[in-house]
Amino acid sequence: MAKRKVWRSRVGGSDTATAPRRGTPFIGIDVGGTKILGVVADGITANFQQRIQRPTPKDPATFADGILAVAEELLGEFPSVAGIGVGVPGLVDHAGVLHYGPNVQGVLGLDIAGQLMTRFSVPAVAENDGYLTALTEHRLGAARGHDHAIVVTQGTGIGGGLIVGGQVLRGANGFAGEPGHMLINRFGHRCACGRDGCWEAVASGAGLANLARDVVEEGKGSSILEAAGGDIDSIRGEHVAEAYADGDPDAKEVMDHFSWWIAQGIGSLIALLDPSIVVLGGGLSAVADGFIEGVSEQLTPAIVGGDHRPVVPVVAAEFGPEAGAVGASLRARDFVING
Amino acid sequence: MAKRKVWRSRVGGSDTATAPRRGTPFIGIDVGGTKILGVVADGITANFQQRIQRPTPKDPATFADGILAVAEELLGEFPSVAGIGVGVPGLVDHAGVLHYGPNVQGVLGLDIAGQLMTRFSVPAVAENDGYLTALTEHRLGAARGHDHAIVVTQGTGIGGGLIVGGQVLRGANGFAGEPGHMLINRFGHRCACGRDGCWEAVASGAGLANLARDVVEEGKGSSILEAAGGDIDSIRGEHVAEAYADGDPDAKEVMDHFSWWIAQGIGSLIALLDPSIVVLGGGLSAVADGFIEGVSEQLTPAIVGGDHRPVVPVVAAEFGPEAGAVGASLRARDFVING
Repeated sequence: MAKRKVWRSRVGGSDTATAPRRGTPFIGIDVGGTKILGVVADGITANFQQRIQRPTPKDPATFADGILAVAEELLGEFPSVAGIGVGVPGLVDHAGVLHYGPNVQGVLGLDIAGQLMTRFSVPAVAENDGYLTALTEHRLGAARGHDHAIVVTQGTGIGGGLIVGGQVLRGANGFAGEPGHMLINRFGHRCACGRDGCWEAVASGAGLANLARDVVEEGKGSSILEAAGGDIDSIRGEHVAEAYADGDPDAKEVMDHFSWWIAQGIGSLIALLDPSIVVLGGGLSAVADGFIEGVSEQLTPAIVGGDHRPVVPVVAAEFGPEAGAVGASLRARDFVING
Repeated sequence: MAKRKVWRSRVGGSDTATAPRRGTPFIGIDVGGTKILGVVADGITANFQQRIQRPTPKDPATFADGILAVAEELLGEFPSVAGIGVGVPGLVDHAGVLHYGPNVQGVLGLDIAGQLMTRFSVPAVAENDGYLTALTEHRLGAARGHDHAIVVTQGTGIGGGLIVGGQVLRGANGFAGEPGHMLINRFGHRCACGRDGCWEAVASGAGLANLARDVVEEGKGSSILEAAGGDIDSIRGEHVAEAYADGDPDAKEVMDHFSWWIAQGIGSLIALLDPSIVVLGGGLSAVADGFIEGVSEQLTPAIVGGDHRPVVPVVAAEFGPEAGAVGASLRARDFVING
């Protein structure tokens, strides 16, 4: 695969690029399965001057156009932007090409950074969205100062990244950091990726809904079902959270099971990577009081030799829905300086 | 926890240590659950001048004595040894202290390197055994030249290590690299670590025996049972291999299932770490012709987006039972040079 550091030849930069002046604006764009979030920030802090949100095009053929339109809108407002970072949900190689993403089916081999540079003559770089979320938490948030950390964000799926040796792990191809697709339950629920038993299928928003449906199918969970309008297929994580907040015991059972599963996956990751902190984010960690504490309590028995090693703190992410877009702006500035 | 680099103050070294002359001997000791293997080598290559094997003391109280005796025997023969490396099976921190190991129950908080230095006034360093095996394969063997690699060795349990960014991963405490204890099968077999459903319980020698017992309990696998002397509890991986070599179809079923499980765990590791090679070693990979090919064939569907990423080669380890001891001698030399 091609190497990075291509933009200088394309846009006329030099090998002796110096750091942009402080305050120079950068665009950060986070592309999700349903929406595109764009911010303008300084590439150093998480303070953004602008924030816009647009729907992700449903048609793979216009997927790139949706991203280009967000960039164009922000560039119109901030013509002095020095670089653009884009996070996309899937396997992104070292050259920034998106190869595949379960939530953006049909988008294959997309060089969105190349398209942005060609169209706007601004340096641009594309990354996996989870990589950028982890970058934000590592540089500015809850994983700050930790050379070894795990950042897990729970939305519809599982995102985040692995911090190893002081850097967010890329791996050989740039595809590292997909803990949602560890096999954890041989005969488990179907995952969005098409396989059965992934961690994501029991530990994401979709996973919480799966666990709730199990309980409803046992004839329990009437409050959850009611919150979902009486349709089992419409149950979402939020419905569980709603019933749980109302003190429903069946919803509590589901939430306990859910946090157990989260602890099991984190335990596996700790056995592998030995981090000094685990950061949980992405919305679901806020759905229920005491949720992170519940995960923590179940963690020691989920780690090999758990009684013989330091407790690994599980903490809430410091950044919310903007973590990916902020990370994209940080990465944009790095890219302009270092490629 | 204490930092390394303690021996110089204890044994009078200096901060400006130079590399030992080529040919200077180093001792490498690999401590397993049943035997202690000691070699004398040059700390650069895998050529050893001496190799001895002694039983591991069964009593945790004399565990350290068994290791000291092997060192003493080798030092008697090679008095110019410049350093000793020891691999032990369990969680070893950055200061070389063994905190816990499932296969050396009762050995807790052992500073074997400290004991070696005190007794023999020779620099000594202790590491996790899997770390040292991975070090050998990375520096001299099948993972040579790969900045991102997975080394999995299948003995009674699962060993090996993770190569990330050109180095064998230690993690925050030194405990990284225990893939055998990923949860992979929620209602799976009991693992040696006491928990249920670990990868090790279906993908190690013990795991192969577990899978064979499942088949025997279904009323099949008579050849396997026969090889085990008719006692289901006596079934070991070797009995499956024996029946398989004789063309037994039930043994083939067990081996296929076994390689499927191995592929699932490797698939999870690839999703997480994105290596450019996977090295399988430890004896079981040699039990059956075509075993590694069988794992490879089942790997693509076991990886998220497997059809959209480069094939990751699965290859046989280049080192056998001496990999850990050789790695210990390599590490001993590094320790003398760099601490």
